[in-house]
Parts: sequence; C-alpha cells; structure tokens
Amino acid sequence: MLATDKVKKVHLMEVGPRDGFQSEKQFVPTETKIRVINALSRTGLPAIQVTSFVHPKAIPQFVDAEDVVAGIDIVPGVSYRALVPNMRGLERARRFRDRIDGVSFMLSVTESHNRANGNRSIDQTLEEIAGMARLAAEDGFTIYGSMICALGCPFEGQVGLDQLDRIAARYVELGVRKISIADTIGVANPKLVHDVVSHMVARYPEVAFNMHLHNTRDMALANTLAALEAGVSRFDGGVAGLGGCPYAPGATGNIATEDMVNMLHGMGIETGIDLDKLLDVARVHKEFIPHALDSALLRAGRGNVLLPAPERQQKVAS
Amino acid sequence: MLATDKVKKVHLMEVGPRDGFQSEKQFVPTETKIRVINALSRTGLPAIQVTSFVHPKAIPQFVDAEDVVAGIDIVPGVSYRALVPNMRGLERARRFRDRIDGVSFMLSVTESHNRANGNRSIDQTLEEIAGMARLAAEDGFTIYGSMICALGCPFEGQVGLDQLDRIAARYVELGVRKISIADTIGVANPKLVHDVVSHMVARYPEVAFNMHLHNTRDMALANTLAALEAGVSRFDGGVAGLGGCPYAPGATGNIATEDMVNMLHGMGIETGIDLDKLLDVARVHKEFIPHALDSALLRAGRGNVLLPAPERQQKVAS
Repeated sequence: MLATDKVKKVHLMEVGPRDGFQSEKQFVPTETKIRVINALSRTGLPAIQVTSFVHPKAIPQFVDAEDVVAGIDIVPGVSYRALVPNMRGLERARRFRDRIDGVSFMLSVTESHNRANGNRSIDQTLEEIAGMARLAAEDGFTIYGSMICALGCPFEGQVGLDQLDRIAARYVELGVRKISIADTIGVANPKLVHDVVSHMVARYPEVAFNMHLHNTRDMALANTLAALEAGVSRFDGGVAGLGGCPYAPGATGNIATEDMVNMLHGMGIETGIDLDKLLDVARVHKEFIPHALDSALLRAGRGNVLLPAPERQQKVAS
Repeated sequence: MLATDKVKKVHLMEVGPRDGFQSEKQFVPTETKIRVINALSRTGLPAIQVTSFVHPKAIPQFVDAEDVVAGIDIVPGVSYRALVPNMRGLERARRFRDRIDGVSFMLSVTESHNRANGNRSIDQTLEEIAGMARLAAEDGFTIYGSMICALGCPFEGQVGLDQLDRIAARYVELGVRKISIADTIGVANPKLVHDVVSHMVARYPEVAFNMHLHNTRDMALANTLAALEAGVSRFDGGVAGLGGCPYAPGATGNIATEDMVNMLHGMGIETGIDLDKLLDVARVHKEFIPHALDSALLRAGRGNVLLPAPERQQKVAS
C-alpha cells in the first residue's frame, strides 16, 4: 500500500493572485485580479491568498491591495487571506477584518535570504512578528507563519534541521499554529521533503504544517507525494503555474494548482475543487499573461476524454 | 522512512534517440544522431536505445537506422539497443548483433491501440513476437518486451490488471524476462502506478520490470517515486525531454533523463551518470531541435550553485 492511501482529503490554498502575480512585471489590472479571484472563489477552493500588503515601492504589482480586497466577492465557505510582510502591512490588512480571515507572515530561515528579502536579521523580523502575532490574534485573524527557503536557500544551500527548529519553536511560542514550509527556489527532492516534514510533524504535533512547493526542477508533485507520506495534507498551489523566483532566472513558479488537483483526484484524494472550473480559471490567464504558462493540464488537457479508436494503423507510439 | 530509502541504485535506459527523435517532424541528420549517441555513451549511462528498425514509410525519421547503428562508437560498458516492431525489423537488427545487444518488442495492451499502432490484433502481434523471441534468443539478444499504454489508453482509458496479466504471462511464456510498463500518454498517477507495479512485481518475480513514463501531466517524477516504492528500479528517460505522443496533441514527452537523474541523485540514489555531462548533451539539442525543450534543468540549472548573498534588500520572494 502506498503510504498516501490513508490520506482522504487535502486542503489547498490558492496563491496565484499573490505569489503568481508578484512575479509578473506587467501590472495586472485591478479588475482582472478581482475577476480571477471571484472565479477562483467559485471552484470549490477552500482558501485564497488574494494579495500582499507590501509597500508598493517593493512590489508595484500590489499597489492596489486595498482595492482588490474591497472589490472581491466574499463567498461563504472560502477563507480569504493576505500576506503581511511587516506591521505596516498588518495595519493595512486590519481594516479588512470583515473580508480577510487570515494573514501570512514572512520569514526566511537563513540570515542571508531574510536580509535580501526584508533587509534585516531573522531576530529583528521575529521581534516584529511577535508584535504582529499579538495584534493579529486580538483581531481574530488566523495566523500563517512561513518558513521561506526551508528546503534550500540560494545563498546558503541546504538548511539544517536545528535552524528550522529554532524558527518553528519561536513561531509556536508566539502562538502561531499554522506554519508553511516553503521550497522557495525549487531545490527540494522527495527524500529531503520526507526527512524534514517527518521531523517537523513529530516535533510540533500542535502545528498544522503546510507545503509551499515550487516546480522549478519538476519535482513539486513528487515532493507533494513525499509530504503526503510524511503526514502533511495542506498545500499551496498557483493556478496556471504562475510565479517564479527573483533569484532563479528562468525558473518556473508555483506548482500549478490544477496539476496538483489532477494528481490528487486521480489518487482518490478529495480537495473539494471542481477541476473543470479551475481549469477554466487557469485558461483565463492566457488572455492577460504575456508569456507561456507552466501548466501541464492547460497544455495537454485532463486526459479523461477517450478518443475514437481508428480502424487501422495510423501512427506509431510506444 | 520513505520507502525509497532502501533503493541504492537505479538503472536508466536513454530513449531520446529513439522515442525522442521519433516525435520530431523534421529529419534529424544522421551525423547529428550519431554525435548525440556518442556523447550519451560517455555520460555513464548504462543503456541507450539508439534507433528503431521500423519501416521508413511508417516513421521516416528512422530511414537511417542502419547508418546510425553502423556509425556510432560502441563504448564498453554501455548496452546499445534497438526497437524492432516486427520480424522484418528484427532481421535488420540481426545484422548488427556485434553492436546491438538488446532488442525491444512493441505491443500495446489494448486492442484499439495495438491496431492503431500496428494494424493488427494483440494475438496477431503476440504470434509474431513468439517467432521473434525465438530468433532473438538464438542470437543472444537480450529481449525487452513493452506493454504500451499499460497505465492508460487514449481509446479505452484505464486498463484492467487482468489484461496486463494476460500480456505479461504470455511474455514470460515466450522467455521474455525484461518487461517495460509504459505510461505512453502520460495519464498515470502515483496510486495507479503503485497499485499496478506492486501487483506485477509480486506476480512475476522472475521479471525485471522497467518504467517508461511520459511527463504529459507533470506526474512522471511522482510516478517514478511511486514505482521505486513499489520495487522497480529500472526506468527510461529521454534526454532534453523530447518525445510526445501522436494521440495527445501538445503533450510533453518522455521525462527528461536529466530531471530524473537530478531527483535520484538528490535522494542519494546512484545512477552511474555524470549529470553535468548529461546536461551538456541535453543542451546540444537546442542547436537542432526547432522547438522549446521540456527539461526543467535546461531551464533552471541544477540548483547546486550558491549565489553571492546581497548586502541588503533586493527583491521579495516567498
């Protein structure tokens, strides 16, 4: 029996409107963002990260964060979340507590990446996060703590379990019970994923871990399988496979949500998502994203449609 | 522990010069084919399928099968193999018994696909294969029997284990001890792979099974992991991710050998292959293949090179 045979349901968070659009140089019009999020809200997805309350100078793509959050339909049963990179971001998010129920904090697990990303040390970031966690908890936000580069850093390579423990333990101290383990630059392999995730799941039974896997080296679905086997059942996906990493030129982005759903459903694992509706949303991206999309299902289709059999020899395949 | 932790070594057969080039409309010059195969021979790959002795009317790409086999360097330690779709093909291959040590037979596991591929019934193909197996054994060829569409057929969908058993049992009766389970159109998922492979491995302990996985829906590496867990340690790969399927428009091809090697090495599993040399061969394909190559490593690099850490904030990644 495959170790995943015991997994019956997976919880997916759609991060395309945030992680995906973040990598797009061209501004995605606010009404397009809203249209995409509204369509995603009606696919059965349980959670969508809709924007980032980051300073527009850092990422101009999210200059319209407030407009997006104010403009989207709030569909019952869907959890709407935002990335809040710092206290200023959290303060902006708080104004939308009636629309957003979760906030994600940003923390790299290596000093060099945290500095490149946030211009300060891990301890400095954790200090700010401590205050943010208090405030967000008061507001009743669910808090999601990220461990960026947990499975590999572009500057420091593989990260020791002791370092991951230090970050996770601090998150737990601060009351964070949802932690995302990110393969930000897509360098993980199934064994590493299984080793790290098994360790974390065993050590922090009070935490619901989530995987954020990039498909840079085509291993995201294999890594998904390894994480499932290690006991994680929460994953991020980016519709249409948008995204990338500023430190990995030519790299592909998030694993396409539709490709992950297709695998999970094929394995008999529920997601609650209507794959055809999700594919429709993925397809819409072709209208406004000016480059090829890294989605296997957009290219090849679901593979669930039988073709008429020819009467005689046509072409040779093997 | 991940179930693959017990796997120490994987045996890879490179099928790019056959399955890859087969899908190319443009003729690949004979000297280019020879150059690619000669370079592959020096990467540490243990086996290469160098051509198909198919009728040139069926696949004009292989009109030069004899010239390729006669022209390549025979490097000690490398197994050179050819696809022989029928007795006529085997007769052509026999003239090169001093250069080729293995022949692959072609058989689809569904009647409709076998007819589309070979214009006859499965029983008719098996009857010819019986004679071919006798002759090939007399010549001392190692025989590889393929089970095309074993994990899904474009005309009939999922294939029952009883049908796979019928084919495998017949192969075994005919003396075939190496059988390739093919996901020809890339519709398998890890659970299906694990179910089918576990069954086959348990039922035919005398057979060395091999997986031939297409990456059409991005699941080839996840399926590789599932097959490893089910006890298979022989895989095909197509350098540079060439290939496709005439029945799956827009479909990607074989899993890129370099992407598979990268995953396996990352997991601590040996292949005997020098990944940098293999990537060099993959890169050469850019010179003569007139379309984008489906190789994650060609796009993104191995991910093993550390970048210099910036002094302060640059871009935001998460």
